[in-house]
Amino acid sequence: MYSFNNDYSEGAHPKILEAVLQSNLTQNDGYGLDHHCEHASQLIKKEIGREDVDIHYIVGGTQANLITIGTALRPWQAVIATDKGHINVHETGAIEATGHKVLAMPSADGKLTPTLILQALDHHTDEHMVQPKMVYISNSTEIGTQYTKAELEAIHHICRQKGLYLFLDGARLGAALTSSVNDVTMEDIARIADVFYIGGTKGGALFGEALIICHPDLKTDFRYMIKQRGAMLAKGWLLGIQFEELFQNNLFYDMALHSNEMADILRDGIKECGYSFYSESMTNQLFPIFPDKIVEQLSKDFLFSIQENIDESHTAIRLVTSWATREEACRQFVHTLKAL
Amino acid sequence: MYSFNNDYSEGAHPKILEAVLQSNLTQNDGYGLDHHCEHASQLIKKEIGREDVDIHYIVGGTQANLITIGTALRPWQAVIATDKGHINVHETGAIEATGHKVLAMPSADGKLTPTLILQALDHHTDEHMVQPKMVYISNSTEIGTQYTKAELEAIHHICRQKGLYLFLDGARLGAALTSSVNDVTMEDIARIADVFYIGGTKGGALFGEALIICHPDLKTDFRYMIKQRGAMLAKGWLLGIQFEELFQNNLFYDMALHSNEMADILRDGIKECGYSFYSESMTNQLFPIFPDKIVEQLSKDFLFSIQENIDESHTAIRLVTSWATREEACRQFVHTLKAL
Amino acid sequence: MYSFNNDYSEGAHPKILEAVLQSNLTQNDGYGLDHHCEHASQLIKKEIGREDVDIHYIVGGTQANLITIGTALRPWQAVIATDKGHINVHETGAIEATGHKVLAMPSADGKLTPTLILQALDHHTDEHMVQPKMVYISNSTEIGTQYTKAELEAIHHICRQKGLYLFLDGARLGAALTSSVNDVTMEDIARIADVFYIGGTKGGALFGEALIICHPDLKTDFRYMIKQRGAMLAKGWLLGIQFEELFQNNLFYDMALHSNEMADILRDGIKECGYSFYSESMTNQLFPIFPDKIVEQLSKDFLFSIQENIDESHTAIRLVTSWATREEACRQFVHTLKAL
Amino acid sequence: MYSFNNDYSEGAHPKILEAVLQSNLTQNDGYGLDHHCEHASQLIKKEIGREDVDIHYIVGGTQANLITIGTALRPWQAVIATDKGHINVHETGAIEATGHKVLAMPSADGKLTPTLILQALDHHTDEHMVQPKMVYISNSTEIGTQYTKAELEAIHHICRQKGLYLFLDGARLGAALTSSVNDVTMEDIARIADVFYIGGTKGGALFGEALIICHPDLKTDFRYMIKQRGAMLAKGWLLGIQFEELFQNNLFYDMALHSNEMADILRDGIKECGYSFYSESMTNQLFPIFPDKIVEQLSKDFLFSIQENIDESHTAIRLVTSWATREEACRQFVHTLKAL
Repeated sequence: MYSFNNDYSEGAHPKILEAVLQSNLTQNDGYGLDHHCEHASQLIKKEIGREDVDIHYIVGGTQANLITIGTALRPWQAVIATDKGHINVHETGAIEATGHKVLAMPSADGKLTPTLILQALDHHTDEHMVQPKMVYISNSTEIGTQYTKAELEAIHHICRQKGLYLFLDGARLGAALTSSVNDVTMEDIARIADVFYIGGTKGGALFGEALIICHPDLKTDFRYMIKQRGAMLAKGWLLGIQFEELFQNNLFYDMALHSNEMADILRDGIKECGYSFYSESMTNQLFPIFPDKIVEQLSKDFLFSIQENIDESHTAIRLVTSWATREEACRQFVHTLKAL
Repeated sequence: MYSFNNDYSEGAHPKILEAVLQSNLTQNDGYGLDHHCEHASQLIKKEIGREDVDIHYIVGGTQANLITIGTALRPWQAVIATDKGHINVHETGAIEATGHKVLAMPSADGKLTPTLILQALDHHTDEHMVQPKMVYISNSTEIGTQYTKAELEAIHHICRQKGLYLFLDGARLGAALTSSVNDVTMEDIARIADVFYIGGTKGGALFGEALIICHPDLKTDFRYMIKQRGAMLAKGWLLGIQFEELFQNNLFYDMALHSNEMADILRDGIKECGYSFYSESMTNQLFPIFPDKIVEQLSKDFLFSIQENIDESHTAIRLVTSWATREEACRQFVHTLKAL
Repeated sequence: MYSFNNDYSEGAHPKILEAVLQSNLTQNDGYGLDHHCEHASQLIKKEIGREDVDIHYIVGGTQANLITIGTALRPWQAVIATDKGHINVHETGAIEATGHKVLAMPSADGKLTPTLILQALDHHTDEHMVQPKMVYISNSTEIGTQYTKAELEAIHHICRQKGLYLFLDGARLGAALTSSVNDVTMEDIARIADVFYIGGTKGGALFGEALIICHPDLKTDFRYMIKQRGAMLAKGWLLGIQFEELFQNNLFYDMALHSNEMADILRDGIKECGYSFYSESMTNQLFPIFPDKIVEQLSKDFLFSIQENIDESHTAIRLVTSWATREEACRQFVHTLKAL
Repeated sequence: MYSFNNDYSEGAHPKILEAVLQSNLTQNDGYGLDHHCEHASQLIKKEIGREDVDIHYIVGGTQANLITIGTALRPWQAVIATDKGHINVHETGAIEATGHKVLAMPSADGKLTPTLILQALDHHTDEHMVQPKMVYISNSTEIGTQYTKAELEAIHHICRQKGLYLFLDGARLGAALTSSVNDVTMEDIARIADVFYIGGTKGGALFGEALIICHPDLKTDFRYMIKQRGAMLAKGWLLGIQFEELFQNNLFYDMALHSNEMADILRDGIKECGYSFYSESMTNQLFPIFPDKIVEQLSKDFLFSIQENIDESHTAIRLVTSWATREEACRQFVHTLKAL
């Protein structure tokens, strides 16, 4: 039974584990104040082409989201996201638990637009309503789509104009930046977003997200919030070591590219069989729509999750590939599908 | 300039003020532990036909909502409401500030239904998502519509079946129960809801909502929460006195009926002129749709709020009548409208 | 049975009720946007000798405290108070419920000092600990003591030096400012505090506290927080009217003076009998220490609360006088005591 | 420069790393639903002699504390701890950030007692004050002391009697259970506490705490809270693998014993030199009091933290040993001290 259930079913790239192993008995300062973290941050600053940022390493994405949003917003402020946004659906109300409303704007393709942002602003005009102050987008999105540079620039522009912080959830940023249709660079991201993170968990690390704060307002006392929310790893260098590896020798991009290439095999095979997709994803998450019978058959050999029942006889499933996905498993999936 | 802006533009029914005046120099126990509150509760228990309830008096509706929901829910639980629900739109994220997500279900007529409740449940299935645990409805609703007894019974039934608490916001319960199409009694409400409140602020008191807790789970330690959220009025008997008056000699219903009758005059007049409405309200909030030009003209003589731009030349406005609305003001509005 | 239980056992000064009555049927804008509030604020600004402040009217003290502190602090920041501080003991954790720690410094006389503030700062030095950012003091204090001008200046100075906001809880500010040993003016308060409130509830109004924000940082979007926490009274002019009366014709001070004079009678009588006090209060709260037997006897004719068991045979009780306390009741208390 | 700064300066026991490495490319279910976690829980259940518990693996101690306390308490409830409690001092107000007050009872030896618990209860008697509902103790404590079985039984007894949950923070439980004066077993802990955790981070794992819920009330929906607070590790099997290793072949205890033995060397040497201690610790945290001059000298060769200035010329420092502490470093420390 091969799993396409998600992109965190395996451990980490062997180089990362090796680096952890190597430093195991060396004494380090705790809480991210070590030189692995320091060095990783230098590498990332080089990668994004900016020195004037603060970088923090957080174990997981939900933490990164709730700490960032909880720090950026005053108690009566809200964050705008799509209805499919990870913070809106799949974090058990983590943002609300920090006291803030998520203004979820309906979006068929999982992407936010200036129009949707303006709609949210238009409906929140005085002190009887929450005050929108941050925009949250994911790239790639929760349904595998991705933003073009022009789209990101437009969102950036409207945020600047309206005094909104722009937060980019990059849990799957690698997949976005290495997809075949991408025209965005890491430098673009760091110029466009006020704060963003580069996902390690879904990008081939054991765990960890590198949170990069560009906007000066968001930098102050940030470590207090990390500690308070229980997100300051005692042995913080474990995060630093992993991001050192990720941003040496192109490892981060190579792994993301592999995940996309594995998805390409699946996508091409599924298209050849004539099936359509729930979303137009060119990244490592695919949402093919199959007759229920096919879904049932496939589930005998492969693990995957159900996205949505499309009609009474069709279902969109979710297939996810990763840095560790084996090519023959993808080919086998296509082979099985064709044989059904 | 006459105001149809809301139903809390004037003070209180003279009888209520008189009663406050009468008791002014009598010493009372504080914090709602006085015998006016005790007596008011006896009157309300008689009115609702139940003795096995706890009754608390709260200064305002937002407090009543946030305290009730904040007490009923565990940290990861959510409340289901319509997208037009007062808690979803007009309380500045008060519920989220207690840590809880409002699951806002789109509803054109402002009413929740078993179907919408089931939809919310279907989308929240495991620990990656919030857990719906309470249903919040308003009667009359935020757009003036009201529930039939059958509709309330159906919601009650689904809540029982699914283990959801049912909370009825009765800020305008008087208007609902005295409208010409109503088939619900106060006793019905107390049987159908697990917790509800009877609105004084919008019902002719200076301020105050009587919160009635029917479900035993919600009773424990409730006064702690009232105090913690700053909603325990030091001179609590001021609330008791007002509800004593409201539930003596039918005053509560008489005032609500007056507000509805004043709305009837407006509604009939507007219909005669051939205008349509944004919602089918038979209560004291009306949402006529007028050409923008008419809106502009009316606003020279009357105060009211804008509900929504319907299209590029039409706007739905909100007209609210109250216990204090003068009949000649309503007739004047119709007269003005007809003359335009 | 006469009650010295607190200073909110009666309603309001007749002039206040009369003013409420007078305006009862006039239509007003809601939520504190009316001209009574506007006018009251002009009167208060004149009283404090500053125009550059924002004034908000809040129904009760716990609300005023939690909204002010919740607005001033970022999530990881804390407020310094004495261990006897109202926010530390008697608000059911209202401040913690907004997410903030109260750093309670032991203080025998209920007053905070620069030394205690510095101690709190010394113990909170990095991101593993909360960050003190506000100082909370009450004048008069919870045990009836009061600050001298020099003491307030010293606290003000240390706050400025250390970047701390200074918040003065004036629930009983009238009693402090009219006590026989007072050397502080309302203008001093408004110069020394960054934010403070003038208590109406305990000062002869039906309810209401006038919150005065001096520091620009604390002004932004304050009404959002008021609304979110359920503290925005729909019929807000009821607050405005009351403070109009309080700050016309010296009514606020006259009532406070009366409460102090009544306390003087009690204090003198108790001293004459040779009893000592738990605290050196020259305001309207007295804490005489009596043999338990005396306490028992007194409780047959008078209502009061128990402050603390001093030893196995002595108890400190709390006697509170108010604007409404009758002179003969005080004389009767002394008479009864002398006869025991 | 050798560090006695803490017990989390090195990585993990080689056996743990090896196990992580071995399973690296095996596909696992995420979020702790894998069979490594399942197996680790079987091992722990055997170790504690109870099957009727729920076990969850959490990355760090602050998370474990805030999730457990946040789940156990209703909004108005509080947790009793010592003033030295980790939750009171060193978690940046994490508990308050969940809305709950920490009732910090002064304790010179860092241990809570029935007397202190009763004091806390005596001071919190009605709805104007928070309601104590949980007791938090650490074993070993934050200053290295530890509870005897009799002491734990007494606390357990008072908690049962008063309806309080008992939560034991076992971040350094290994050090307590293997110290030379210990008379408590893991089975005792699981019988005495309603919920507790076994510390991996400070016990030789890369990270992770095994949280064991004994009381049925605390079990319901616990995973929702873990997810909401960002503490559900995507690759949860990394936690399972580590606890599998810790509870096979006595590894957990062997490592803790080593840390204690290293502390014994330091303690004996310091005592020989005639110095006294800030606390009577027989575990892996020592708090010797040295003349400031000695402290300065020692700091040239060793890293350690300052606990407290004892008087103007003496300072208590903190020395911590761990599973990885080298014996020669301890001997060197003593050697250096003797030479000063």
